[in-house]
Amino acid sequence: MQIAIGLYPGLTLLDAIGPYQVLSQVPGNELIVCAERTGRLTDDNGLIHFDIEHTFADAPRPDLLLVPGGFISRKLARDRDPIVDWIAEAHPHTTYTTSVCTGSLLLGAAGLLEGLDATTHWSAYDELATYGARPTEKRVVQQGRIWTAAGVSAGIDLALTLLAEIYGPEMSQAVQLGIEYDPQPPFDAGSPSKAPADVLELVRAVSAEKEAAILGQ
Amino acid sequence: MQIAIGLYPGLTLLDAIGPYQVLSQVPGNELIVCAERTGRLTDDNGLIHFDIEHTFADAPRPDLLLVPGGFISRKLARDRDPIVDWIAEAHPHTTYTTSVCTGSLLLGAAGLLEGLDATTHWSAYDELATYGARPTEKRVVQQGRIWTAAGVSAGIDLALTLLAEIYGPEMSQAVQLGIEYDPQPPFDAGSPSKAPADVLELVRAVSAEKEAAILGQ
Repeated sequence: MQIAIGLYPGLTLLDAIGPYQVLSQVPGNELIVCAERTGRLTDDNGLIHFDIEHTFADAPRPDLLLVPGGFISRKLARDRDPIVDWIAEAHPHTTYTTSVCTGSLLLGAAGLLEGLDATTHWSAYDELATYGARPTEKRVVQQGRIWTAAGVSAGIDLALTLLAEIYGPEMSQAVQLGIEYDPQPPFDAGSPSKAPADVLELVRAVSAEKEAAILGQ
Repeated sequence: MQIAIGLYPGLTLLDAIGPYQVLSQVPGNELIVCAERTGRLTDDNGLIHFDIEHTFADAPRPDLLLVPGGFISRKLARDRDPIVDWIAEAHPHTTYTTSVCTGSLLLGAAGLLEGLDATTHWSAYDELATYGARPTEKRVVQQGRIWTAAGVSAGIDLALTLLAEIYGPEMSQAVQLGIEYDPQPPFDAGSPSKAPADVLELVRAVSAEKEAAILGQ
């Protein structure tokens, strides 16, 4: 099976690398990391640069398509960035079309989420609804062959759930053990309903600031 | 504070990107991603290429030093790769010297783990012991200012634990919420003691094969 992970400048790195680490452990697949252009592509912190070898044109019909999120994906979705066209053209032929975090806004802009349950980063539920989706707080939302994951780190759970669906529980467990994914965060604050109220307010304010700065560019 | 994440060709990507995503969310720090050489650096799958801007010489005295693991790190540790010298020379001046997965073998080769509790990927406990460390199965092991994390995904927990130590619980919780780290893997198979026996045997065999192929290079 061909797996294509579509990137863009300004992505949030863990959104892509979490599922990449999981999906790349399965032997026998072709995994393509692609973007609109080859060459240098920088993350949302401006600190890590990829040297991209493949364009979207190299993966027009992947079996599994995955797009990460990032603060800029709201803007890319509104402006119908070329990644949106890639998704729209590839989707009729995929077995699974998937997103992590605000990557679901790109699926939405491609017209894929109309009338479906879907998820995204918790700060973007309202934006997701503008694409006709019904935002849900589940970590991984499966609607036929369209799967969306919650924010950033949820891509790891998405990818392990995909492996269980495609290959069965043993493959998913084997990869989970291989990446020693036995999560033990020091706090239980990873969702809006679990975090202390003041922490939620703080993160909401910082997120809104970052988003405004990027959308104002 | 200056944070330096030291990379090398053949690293396992999530080892580095998990903690990178956490540590980069804290405002006001300088975060440097460095390697022996600038330019192209490829991960252990041969599929993702970084364009590296900084060498170890650009970060001789970071406050927080972090090294990821990878199958090749066993070889780098035995051959005393330049990253080992960087660690050995920087460590006397750091506030925290830290590793993810088999990155701890590089700390070991730098002479840092003699007589200390430490951890690594579960498949490398024996190798870790050859550097005088006492391997433990804990997810994050703190010994003074030397902190080691278990395999691959444990770097996320390491980094969140570091934030709690350095900045207090609110910062750690805020970043956890920001990356929506509310883990929900479909199975509970992420450590040798939790995975089914046949899955453990399978992964052990695949790991040994991969390691042999790399050490034979």
